[in-house]
Amino acid sequence: MHIVITGAAGFLGQRLVARLLARGELKGQPLHRLTLVDQVEPELPFSDAVEVEGLALDIAEPGALDEVLDARPQVIYHLAAVVSSAAEEDLDLGMEVNFDATRALLDGCRERGLATTRLVMASSVAAYGGDLPAVLDDMTALQPQNSYGTQKAMCELLINDYSRRGLVDGCVLRLPTIIVRPGRPNAAASSFASSLLREPLNGEEAVCPVAAELALFVMSPGKVIEALVHGAEVPGEALAPFRAFMLPGITVSVAEMLETLRRVGGEQALALVRHERDPRIEAIVAGWPARFDSRRARALGFGGDRDLDEIVQAFLRERA
Amino acid sequence: MHIVITGAAGFLGQRLVARLLARGELKGQPLHRLTLVDQVEPELPFSDAVEVEGLALDIAEPGALDEVLDARPQVIYHLAAVVSSAAEEDLDLGMEVNFDATRALLDGCRERGLATTRLVMASSVAAYGGDLPAVLDDMTALQPQNSYGTQKAMCELLINDYSRRGLVDGCVLRLPTIIVRPGRPNAAASSFASSLLREPLNGEEAVCPVAAELALFVMSPGKVIEALVHGAEVPGEALAPFRAFMLPGITVSVAEMLETLRRVGGEQALALVRHERDPRIEAIVAGWPARFDSRRARALGFGGDRDLDEIVQAFLRERA
Repeated sequence: MHIVITGAAGFLGQRLVARLLARGELKGQPLHRLTLVDQVEPELPFSDAVEVEGLALDIAEPGALDEVLDARPQVIYHLAAVVSSAAEEDLDLGMEVNFDATRALLDGCRERGLATTRLVMASSVAAYGGDLPAVLDDMTALQPQNSYGTQKAMCELLINDYSRRGLVDGCVLRLPTIIVRPGRPNAAASSFASSLLREPLNGEEAVCPVAAELALFVMSPGKVIEALVHGAEVPGEALAPFRAFMLPGITVSVAEMLETLRRVGGEQALALVRHERDPRIEAIVAGWPARFDSRRARALGFGGDRDLDEIVQAFLRERA
Repeated sequence: MHIVITGAAGFLGQRLVARLLARGELKGQPLHRLTLVDQVEPELPFSDAVEVEGLALDIAEPGALDEVLDARPQVIYHLAAVVSSAAEEDLDLGMEVNFDATRALLDGCRERGLATTRLVMASSVAAYGGDLPAVLDDMTALQPQNSYGTQKAMCELLINDYSRRGLVDGCVLRLPTIIVRPGRPNAAASSFASSLLREPLNGEEAVCPVAAELALFVMSPGKVIEALVHGAEVPGEALAPFRAFMLPGITVSVAEMLETLRRVGGEQALALVRHERDPRIEAIVAGWPARFDSRRARALGFGGDRDLDEIVQAFLRERA
C-alpha cells in the first residue's frame, strides 16, 4: 500500500501520518510507502516498516505531481489548500491551488489509468451558504458565500464526475468546524471555538466574540482523522450517486461550551473567558450551518463524537 | 445598449435575436449594437436601427472573445455550449467549451472592469441528479449524473462567486425541457417530448418511448425567450445570495400530452403515435426532476406557461 498525502505538513496531515503509521495497514494491505507532499518539506517520522519520503513542491505548478503519480499510489489524500481568508484575499491564488491543482491531480490520475486509486479530499462547511434551512442534509444545495467554499464545491463536482466516469475513485469529506485545535489562536473566524476551551484549560485568557446562543457544528481532530482513514476504505459503489457528503459532527452552542468548561476546569477556568462581541466575526459565523442530518455519513460507516465532554476529554488526554 | 450573444446561431439564439430586435430596447436603453457569435457565422437579420455584426469563432480558443469584450458590451448572453450527449462522449471538449470558455469569459470581464455587465447564462435541468425529493426547489443540491450537468453546475458556482466579488453581474437560468421545439427529431433523450406533439400535428408519425405516467418539467420556447430578456433586466441585488435558479416550468405527464394532442388534433392525430418503450431513453429521463417549487423565479418576476394547451396553441400559431 502506497499512500500519498498532499498538505502533509499541516495540522491534519501530520496527525494522519501518525495514525497511518501506527495502523500499519489500509484497506487490509500493509503500508509500505508513504509520500508526504507540502510546500515546505514535511518533517519525516521514523518508521522501520514503511518507506517515508518527503517532497517540497508547489502543487499549482504544471506537472508538479507527475513523479508522484507515476509511482501509481493506491490512495491519495488531497489535503493541500489555500485557506478561506487567503482565498478570499487572492482569487487567482485560490483558483490555482484549490481548484486547478485538484483538476490537474484528477487529469494526472486519468492519464495514467489510476481508475482504482482512491482520492480522498477534504471539503468544508464553508461550501454551504445562502438561505439555509434550520437542519441541513446532503441534499441541501451548496450556495457558497466565499471563494474558498466555491472552489471546494467545484472540486466536489469534478471529483464526482471523474469517479462516475471511472477515471478515479473519489471520496470527498465535508469537514465540520474542528475543536479543540491545538496550538495558538489564528486569524480564522472559527478560531474562537477552539480558544474558548483550550486557553482557559491552559490557564490563559480567551475572548468570546459571539452570543452564547450561537450554535456550531463541530468534530474533534481524532474523529476527523478516523473519518479520513475510513474515507480510504469505504467502497466506491456505496458512494454513488454523489461522492461528497458532510461528516457527522455534533451541534453545540457556545453556552454548552462554557458550561463544559466550568464543569471540567472549574469556576476559575470559566472566569478566564472575557465576553467581547465582535460584529465582524458574528457576521461570518452566523451564516454557518449548525444542524445537519448526518444519515448519509452514518450509513456509510462514518462515526462522530458522542458529546462535547468526550471532545474535551480527548483534548485533555492528548495535552497530558 | 450593446448586446453580445454567444451560440447566436442556435435555436434559442436566433429567437432571442429576433425578440431583441423587435423590442428595440433592453433595460430601458435603446438597442444600438448586437454582436452575434457562433462557431459558424450566424445569419444576420436586417435592421435599420441596430448595427448587427456576426463573428465566427471558437470560444474555447484562448483570447477568442478579447475583441468582443474590448467593446465593453452592457449585456452578454452566453448560450454557446457543447450539448449533453457530446459532453458525455468527449470529456475534454465539454470541459473546454462548457467550463473553460465560461471561465475565460468571466476573467475577460474581470480584466476589463466590466463589473456592471450583465452576464446571462443558460444552465439546465441536467445539473440535477441523485436521490432527488419528489418536489425540488432552489435549495435542492446539484448532484449531476452527467458531465454536461457537472460543467454547468461548476459555471453556476463560478458566476455566483465572480458576481459576489463584484467582478461581473451574473444571472444563470436553469432551463426546463423545452417543448414544442420546431424542426426534426434529434439524438437528445428529450427529443420525444417535442416529437409527440409536433409530428402528429404535422400529420406525421411519432414514437412514444416512455410510459404514459412519466412526468416532465417543461417550458415553451416563447417563455424561455421571455425569461432570457427578463434575465438581463432583473436587478443584481435581487439575485443574492445565489445567482442561479430554476425557471418556472410546468409539470406535465405524457398522458396529458397525448390527451391534449387528441383534443387539439383529433383521434387521427393521436393514432399517429406509436408506443414503443425504449429502456435506454426511459433510464435517462426517469432521473430527471419533474416537479419544482418555482417560488424563487416567480418572486424575481419570471413567468411560465399557464398550461399545456397554451404551449400547444403557441406552437400552432407559430407554425401557421
